Amino acid sequence: MTTVLSQAEDREAGTRSVVDRALTILGTFQGNRSRQALSDISRHSGLPIATCYRIVQRLVEWGALERDGENRYRVGLRLWEVASRAPRSVGLQRLARPYLLDLYETTGYATHLAIREGVELVSIERFQNPRRVVRRPVIGSRYQLHVTAIGQVLLAHAPRDVQDAVLSAELPAYTPNTYTDPATLERVLADIRRTGYAVSDRQVDLSHISVAAPVRGADGSVIAALSLALTQRDTPVKSVVHLVQLTATSISRALLAAGFGDPGDGRASSV
Amino acid sequence: MTTVLSQAEDREAGTRSVVDRALTILGTFQGNRSRQALSDISRHSGLPIATCYRIVQRLVEWGALERDGENRYRVGLRLWEVASRAPRSVGLQRLARPYLLDLYETTGYATHLAIREGVELVSIERFQNPRRVVRRPVIGSRYQLHVTAIGQVLLAHAPRDVQDAVLSAELPAYTPNTYTDPATLERVLADIRRTGYAVSDRQVDLSHISVAAPVRGADGSVIAALSLALTQRDTPVKSVVHLVQLTATSISRALLAAGFGDPGDGRASSV
Repeated sequence: MTTVLSQAEDREAGTRSVVDRALTILGTFQGNRSRQALSDISRHSGLPIATCYRIVQRLVEWGALERDGENRYRVGLRLWEVASRAPRSVGLQRLARPYLLDLYETTGYATHLAIREGVELVSIERFQNPRRVVRRPVIGSRYQLHVTAIGQVLLAHAPRDVQDAVLSAELPAYTPNTYTDPATLERVLADIRRTGYAVSDRQVDLSHISVAAPVRGADGSVIAALSLALTQRDTPVKSVVHLVQLTATSISRALLAAGFGDPGDGRASSV
Repeated sequence: MTTVLSQAEDREAGTRSVVDRALTILGTFQGNRSRQALSDISRHSGLPIATCYRIVQRLVEWGALERDGENRYRVGLRLWEVASRAPRSVGLQRLARPYLLDLYETTGYATHLAIREGVELVSIERFQNPRRVVRRPVIGSRYQLHVTAIGQVLLAHAPRDVQDAVLSAELPAYTPNTYTDPATLERVLADIRRTGYAVSDRQVDLSHISVAAPVRGADGSVIAALSLALTQRDTPVKSVVHLVQLTATSISRALLAAGFGDPGDGRASSV
């Protein structure tokens, strides 16, 4: 019996270590690291180069990674195809996209959709003037919650422990307008819950004002947020608040119709 | 020495089998299977349920998969974040997107960007009227090359062995206009190489005509294709050919400036 248990434990440990190493290697492809030599992968994963080599070969053969002409590795097409089935990001993106595009075309202002993951914001979709120089936020990248209107909406509707974690950590200033005082931020979050929208006035940089509203899933909980960024100080913020709220509500309605965000995620698979 | 070799071989075989199983499990999430119970994963991967369980736990812990309230698994946010670093799809998508959006906004017609993977087309980006009922192509999905204008452009510029594979296989008819005769298709491909564009006249369904042109990487080779779909028979095809070619050329120019599609993929990492 002891032997059987040990074998099971051994198998468990073996599975754990090899799968974890493969995932650790995939996880080194983040931020600006979209193209790495084997030595980069070894350094960023903390795994010996021989181990990296063995696992990378498997990942390349399957298509999770691809090798280019300079012996550098990059994330492969097949992994992207699998990831295109992710309902929380791609499913939401697909449902919300027409509404975001409508809002962008109607107003000409940059629109942005994001969800919360832990104490960070993950950018899901955005539309902005193709001629704009600044290409932020980067889709699939993470940002802090306290800085932008969209992040503040997500934080205002996050579970208490997430709010506490953000409020008790350092709140870095991006501009003199960024909320860096926890008590102030806490009051702002209460206002956002009461009014149903957030305004970030030059808190990310000194040229943008953004307005955000919550997007609700089929069960009524806030699962995403939508924002619109104005580029000129003289644009009346009030004139766009209702547009942002209306678009967020339309997306919520579409999510309800699709059963998206149900406890069991209803028909999210068909999205 | 024999023992050392055996150990290395054992390690190689062990790595191979566990990583391959994990990838096989991820690969079961495709097409409409974006949400699966453990039994579905076991059935589609051909792996015993206990093995699936062990590996799925590791994938969930890392965030490659997520479990919903009904004990079903879906592709996780973290895998999507890693996949968002894939230069061949996301990098190209990011560079080409503003041009596609411009073309869509200028013409009001659906625009589509795709690359070739083996004998299939993988859809990378599209813009279409949000009020259109048909939501095809699905981004991250695969389609046959001989049917659409965009596929025909990719096929016309594919290596000879890829063309031979497609021409010698069955060419299923989607409408009475679909090219099902290899000799006809081969002549069409030669025309596409000569004229620089393709027209698919109700070959996918009986209401669409699409026009496509090649997108070239920094080394001059065709790495993608762009199409525009007209919905009305009376729209003059000739009036949009130059628009499609011009947009494809603009994207090629942007790829050249970014060094995208170089043998070593130049600065594709910074895209």
